[in-house]
Amino acid sequence: MNCEQSVFLKALKRQPVERTPAWMMRQAGRYLPEYREVRQKAGDFMSLCRNPELACEVTLQPLRRFDIDAAILFSDILTIPDAMGLGLHFTPGEGPCFDKPIQDDKDVAALPIPDPSDELSYVMDAVKMIRHHMPAHLPLIGFAGSPWTLACYMVEGGPSRDFKKVKSMLYQAPELMHQLLAKITQATTVYLNAQIESGVNAVMIFDTWGGVLTPSAYQEFSLCPMQKILAGLETRAGKIPTILFTKGGGQWLELMAETGCDALGLDWMTDIGLARQRVGDKVALQGNMDPALLLTTPQRINQEVKAIIDAFGGGTGHIFNLGHGITPDVPVENVQAFFAAVKEHG
Amino acid sequence: MNCEQSVFLKALKRQPVERTPAWMMRQAGRYLPEYREVRQKAGDFMSLCRNPELACEVTLQPLRRFDIDAAILFSDILTIPDAMGLGLHFTPGEGPCFDKPIQDDKDVAALPIPDPSDELSYVMDAVKMIRHHMPAHLPLIGFAGSPWTLACYMVEGGPSRDFKKVKSMLYQAPELMHQLLAKITQATTVYLNAQIESGVNAVMIFDTWGGVLTPSAYQEFSLCPMQKILAGLETRAGKIPTILFTKGGGQWLELMAETGCDALGLDWMTDIGLARQRVGDKVALQGNMDPALLLTTPQRINQEVKAIIDAFGGGTGHIFNLGHGITPDVPVENVQAFFAAVKEHG
Repeated sequence: MNCEQSVFLKALKRQPVERTPAWMMRQAGRYLPEYREVRQKAGDFMSLCRNPELACEVTLQPLRRFDIDAAILFSDILTIPDAMGLGLHFTPGEGPCFDKPIQDDKDVAALPIPDPSDELSYVMDAVKMIRHHMPAHLPLIGFAGSPWTLACYMVEGGPSRDFKKVKSMLYQAPELMHQLLAKITQATTVYLNAQIESGVNAVMIFDTWGGVLTPSAYQEFSLCPMQKILAGLETRAGKIPTILFTKGGGQWLELMAETGCDALGLDWMTDIGLARQRVGDKVALQGNMDPALLLTTPQRINQEVKAIIDAFGGGTGHIFNLGHGITPDVPVENVQAFFAAVKEHG
Repeated sequence: MNCEQSVFLKALKRQPVERTPAWMMRQAGRYLPEYREVRQKAGDFMSLCRNPELACEVTLQPLRRFDIDAAILFSDILTIPDAMGLGLHFTPGEGPCFDKPIQDDKDVAALPIPDPSDELSYVMDAVKMIRHHMPAHLPLIGFAGSPWTLACYMVEGGPSRDFKKVKSMLYQAPELMHQLLAKITQATTVYLNAQIESGVNAVMIFDTWGGVLTPSAYQEFSLCPMQKILAGLETRAGKIPTILFTKGGGQWLELMAETGCDALGLDWMTDIGLARQRVGDKVALQGNMDPALLLTTPQRINQEVKAIIDAFGGGTGHIFNLGHGITPDVPVENVQAFFAAVKEHG
C-alpha cells in the first residue's frame, strides 16, 4: 500500500474524497513538549535541521499524537542560502541572520548553486529516513521558500519590517535582482527535484514575503520565479502535486492559479468560499484558519473549523490547514480539537 | 478665498479638477531636518503632539518646502487612549507602549470618554492655530485611528507581531470586544467632530491593523465601528469629506466603499486601476506609491508616479499619495521629486 490513494493527495488533485484532509503548517514544532526535548538535545535550531535522525524524529512526532493526513519534512526555508555559504545563524528573539548578506553584483556572481547530494545531503537523508519510518499510506510533503522570500533574507541579512535594502535593489537594480533570483530559482529547482527523488510525495513553496510587493513587482519578481520552479519539477519519479502559498497574496489568486500548481495555500485574510469562486476548478485550496484561534478553546476552534468548511462549500479540492504556522504557545489539546473538528465537519 | 475650491477637496468629492492633487502620509516628519530640530526642542514625541505651537510649526514645515495640496494635522492616533488614562509612553526602538493595557471587563467599563475641550483641548488648539496660520486656499486634514487599531494597541499594550491578546479577546469574548470598540467609537466620533468644529476641512481614519483580521472579523470589528463614526460626523460646520484607509484591506474595497466615506486610501499592494474598476464612481481613491520608492532616485520616483497616474486612468477622483507613511531616512530631494512628478504627470 502506498499513499497515492491518500485523501490528501486525492484532494490536491481534485479527485473525489470521502472527507476533508488536514495537516497544520509547522505541526512539528515548539508547542509539542517532545519537540522541545529533542530540540534541547540538538542544541540550536539549525543543528536540529542538519541531523537527519532528529529531523526524522520531530517530523514523526505529531503523527503519533494526532490523526493527521500528511507529514511535512522538518527543515527550514533558509537551508539553501545557508548552503550557499552566507553564514546563517539564529539570534534568540531576533530570528535568522546572515553573516554575509548579498550587497552587490560581485556577491551575486559569487553565489554557488548548492549540490543537493553534497552540502544539502542532510535534507535528502532526512527525507529518505522519514519516508522509510512513517506510515506508508500517508504522504510526505517537501518544501522550499520562494526565491523572492529567500532574496529578502539574503539581502536584508535577517528579518525586516520594511524590506528597504531588498526593495532598493529591486527598484534601482532590477537586472541584478533578476540575476539573484535566477540563482535562487536554479538552486531551488534542483533542491526540490532532489527531495522528490528522495521520496516526498508533494511539494509546497512558501512565499512568505510576496505580499509586501506591488502587484506588478509581485508578478515579475515573486510569481515568475516560482512558476519557473514549478515548470522545472519534472523528475524521474514523475510529476507530483504542488502547493503555492503567498502570504498576503489574496488579491492575486487568479494569477497564482495560472502557474501550473495544483493547489493554493490561503492565509486567513481571504474568504475561502470567494477564493473558490475566483479560481474555479483550476486548483485545490489549502487553508485557512487564523492561527490565533488555536489560543482559544476547543469549542471555539470547532466552531471556526465548521465555518471554514461550510464556506468552502463541499466537494473535493479542500485541504484543511491554518492560514500560517502554529505558534509555540498553543495548548496541545487545542491542536487535538482542531484535527477532531475537521474529522467531524469535513 | 477659502479652500472649498482646492483641487484636493474637489478631487475628494469627484468634481472636475485641472490636475491630480498630492500630499504625503507623515509629510510632517523626521525626514525633514527642521522637524528634527523642533522635535529635539520638544523632548519626546508626545510632548511635541501636546504643544500646539510646536505641532502647528511642524504641520506647516512641509508646506514651505514643497508644493503640496493639503496639510495634515501633526498628531498621533494614540491621543485618545492616552486621554483615557492608559499611560502612553514611547520606548525608543519599541514604539508606543501603555502602562495600563486593557485586560478585562472592569478595565473596559472604567474607560472614560475623553472630553475634546478638556483632556484633548491641545489637539483642538493645534487645529485652530494651524488653520489660522496656513494658506487659506489649502485644506487641513484631521484624523483618528480606527477603533480596531486603537483596540490593538490598548489590549496588546504596545506594538505586536501576531496580535494574540486582542485576537483572543475578539474570538473568546466578542461581546467585551464590542463594548471596548463602542467606547472607542464614541470617543473618536466626538473627537473628530471637535476637530471639524475647530477647522479641519477633511478627515481620514487610519485603520492600520484591520488587515490582520479574517474577512468576517474585519467587517464586524473594524469596518462596522468605522462606519458608525462616519455616520456620526454631522456637525454644525456641515458635512466634510472623509477618507477611509485600511492597510492590507485591498480585498475589501467594495465593502469599504459602501460605508458612506468619500474616498478610500490604498496601500501599494493594490493596483489602483483595478481598484477603480471595482469601486466605480462610488468613491475617490487616494494613493498608492510604495514608500520604499522614496529611497531610490528622482528618476525612478518620476517613473513610478507616472505609472500610477496612468494606471488610475485620468479624470477626477485621484488624490496622489504614498501607500503608507514616509520613513525617516528619505532624502529631501526625493520628496521634492515626488511632488514635482505628480505635477508633471497628473
